[in-house]
Amino acid sequence: MTHVAVVGHLARTDGAFSLNDLPSGGGRMDVLCRCVTASLFLSRSLRRDVEWCSLVLLGPPAPPKTVKFSGGSVRSLNPDERSPAALVKKALSIPCGSEFRESSAGVSVRKGGLSRLVEEQRFGVLDEQGSDIRTADDLPDAFLLSDHLNFSPDEETLLSVCPKFSVGPAVLHAESAITVLLNELDRRALAWK
Amino acid sequence: MTHVAVVGHLARTDGAFSLNDLPSGGGRMDVLCRCVTASLFLSRSLRRDVEWCSLVLLGPPAPPKTVKFSGGSVRSLNPDERSPAALVKKALSIPCGSEFRESSAGVSVRKGGLSRLVEEQRFGVLDEQGSDIRTADDLPDAFLLSDHLNFSPDEETLLSVCPKFSVGPAVLHAESAITVLLNELDRRALAWK
Repeated sequence: MTHVAVVGHLARTDGAFSLNDLPSGGGRMDVLCRCVTASLFLSRSLRRDVEWCSLVLLGPPAPPKTVKFSGGSVRSLNPDERSPAALVKKALSIPCGSEFRESSAGVSVRKGGLSRLVEEQRFGVLDEQGSDIRTADDLPDAFLLSDHLNFSPDEETLLSVCPKFSVGPAVLHAESAITVLLNELDRRALAWK
Repeated sequence: MTHVAVVGHLARTDGAFSLNDLPSGGGRMDVLCRCVTASLFLSRSLRRDVEWCSLVLLGPPAPPKTVKFSGGSVRSLNPDERSPAALVKKALSIPCGSEFRESSAGVSVRKGGLSRLVEEQRFGVLDEQGSDIRTADDLPDAFLLSDHLNFSPDEETLLSVCPKFSVGPAVLHAESAITVLLNELDRRALAWK
């Protein structure tokens, strides 16, 4: 089971953003929504083997929060940006504590961010300086990457023990890096490599 | 120089769709917009080596039309779905004839569809039944794929002479297939393969 986690450095932590303005009003929530789509969608079905796509939200007014989508149980999710955005907005509109609380089928929210996530799971980090995913002997089950901004120095310190992997010679948007990563995992799982 | 073309079987051919409802009102214009983003964006720049991303629009009221985005000259394009959608909407709002007419910087529109495009350029078709792009000795410069629907029998006939390539064992959304394709082309261009 695969886990993809994305850090949204500016992403709002309440539901007070408009679905018509995800880039500015949502703190680049558009990036995170495309990451959800890239993580969970196949052409005519969902990637039920993606256990979680987690969004670590660090923007105002109440950071950090983590919203996670379960590939196995999410419902009412379409691939356009507004669809995951509406589910994130709903998750951010309910009271939440330190444990995950379900806001809609397969979508949950809790307080807490990257440090807690890294305690719970050993991640590989997608990073242009990492080793090539195609030539890596083994790949982990969990991958972490940043949105349109670089990791902060504190985050870099937190992640310094994680192995780093690159998806290719061009530096891609987060959602594109996820797509290339999952293609590599598909190939390994089905002996296409 | 790379050319990516996507057939939008239901995509509207006038500007009478709302940016707030690309999936239904636009005839799955959201799919085509994500294909533009996947074709043209790197993390912090545009793929200036993508000569064209062409959208073949076959929906009402005036099919077929083709809108093309130039990686080399497009301006005012952001990666969220609404941004390319606004440029497509503008292109579809001007009168056009049989030759491409620029509607905004790097975006042009003409009447005509797939048969004309195929006369002008030799395409490889992205198809799950095709040969693996990773193991193909040579790849063409131009690639064609369908939106969320299969090619029609007439389109299949038109494309029967084109070589077919698969991006992997899982059947992906059109924009994801483009992302994996461009990763393969990046790797070949920069000797990462």
